[in-house]
Amino acid sequence: MQEVKLEPNERIDDLMTETGLHIIQSREVFSFSLDAVLLSKFATIPKGGRIIDLCTGNGVIPMLLTTRTSARIDAVEIQPRLADMARRSVEMNNLSEQISIIEADLKIFAKEAGNGIYDAVTVNPPYMAVKAGDSNENEHYAIARHEVHCTLDDVVHACARLVRSGGRVAMVHRPSRFIDIIETMRKYRLEPKRVQFVHPNAQGEANMVLIEAIRDGKPELRLLPPVFVYE
Amino acid sequence: MQEVKLEPNERIDDLMTETGLHIIQSREVFSFSLDAVLLSKFATIPKGGRIIDLCTGNGVIPMLLTTRTSARIDAVEIQPRLADMARRSVEMNNLSEQISIIEADLKIFAKEAGNGIYDAVTVNPPYMAVKAGDSNENEHYAIARHEVHCTLDDVVHACARLVRSGGRVAMVHRPSRFIDIIETMRKYRLEPKRVQFVHPNAQGEANMVLIEAIRDGKPELRLLPPVFVYE
Repeated sequence: MQEVKLEPNERIDDLMTETGLHIIQSREVFSFSLDAVLLSKFATIPKGGRIIDLCTGNGVIPMLLTTRTSARIDAVEIQPRLADMARRSVEMNNLSEQISIIEADLKIFAKEAGNGIYDAVTVNPPYMAVKAGDSNENEHYAIARHEVHCTLDDVVHACARLVRSGGRVAMVHRPSRFIDIIETMRKYRLEPKRVQFVHPNAQGEANMVLIEAIRDGKPELRLLPPVFVYE
Repeated sequence: MQEVKLEPNERIDDLMTETGLHIIQSREVFSFSLDAVLLSKFATIPKGGRIIDLCTGNGVIPMLLTTRTSARIDAVEIQPRLADMARRSVEMNNLSEQISIIEADLKIFAKEAGNGIYDAVTVNPPYMAVKAGDSNENEHYAIARHEVHCTLDDVVHACARLVRSGGRVAMVHRPSRFIDIIETMRKYRLEPKRVQFVHPNAQGEANMVLIEAIRDGKPELRLLPPVFVYE
């Protein structure tokens, strides 16, 4: 592990991988959640080629993906403070050869990067609609959690531009938005192929959904066994 | 139980209800399946008012619903042989006051019956696309299982016409068609609100899906705990 500078209130957490990965987090700014971990396991990941993670936050998803692939991974984050955390975590884990952290607005990035240049896309987007009065959260969390800088349509549109035909887009989101997600995916020629619902326990309603689509895929959905998280 | 005439190869099965219901079945013509039983339990059923069951087959769903409601139930079946079986089962159980079996094509029935006259609709439609070469099934099963006389679009359109605004439509189908179903529902202003996937066991992919929509409902989907059928 390389030594890196920590900002005030930052800490280093063990990602509990066999490869000994660690990550910089901060309760004040950003900590990853279970969503990201489940998405990293769920996504069908090519062994090589190029992958992009959007809304990467502190970079937890690209780092976890390195345990499954030697593909080059780009990761986009709009918040400078978070992109900086992610970049230092990548350095700390000696992953600068495999992961590039890009500070950018995904809407602009997707337009400029070129169409279909990635084999797979992962994304854990902000999932809450912006409502008046949602002001008791700090700005970093608000941007990461709410559709402040990008709507669901923006996110799906960016994924569809970036992935090649036949390539995969994996997303984690809330079940209440499931129908909007699949309608938006289809609008941009991403055909949902694998879905897995995550329940807090066997008696509980699902509180997360994992969805994988194939660009220009044939319609036929598989519903994977449910995941139960005994929280 | 009233005495009724049985056709050759028909038998009487116990529906295992507390009210002692029985049903006429025939391996050669039609036997109900687990789909129908699960739908009868899943559907949100008004205590009174009017309910309609489409693609009723031998009438198992309306009969099971009588254990949950005193609403008037109409049930539509296109095949004369099956409508006749259903009608005799209704008589046999002394349910002629509550259930009316209507032999009709649901497309025509839905146009002529009047818009929004039912408080709830249930339907276990044929779920297989018609393919060339699917000929080793007898005609009764082929019609009940395949989209011979009605497509998914026909079925959903009929449901949307028949149910009142705010009323509920409950359907059982195959997960592979899930996305088509919810897109078609939305097209006809049926907003999916409750979904439950049925898996053969905890490790298996879902092989049935139960969906309930509200006519003109607000978008917000609930994903109920999964059902495991230990077959």
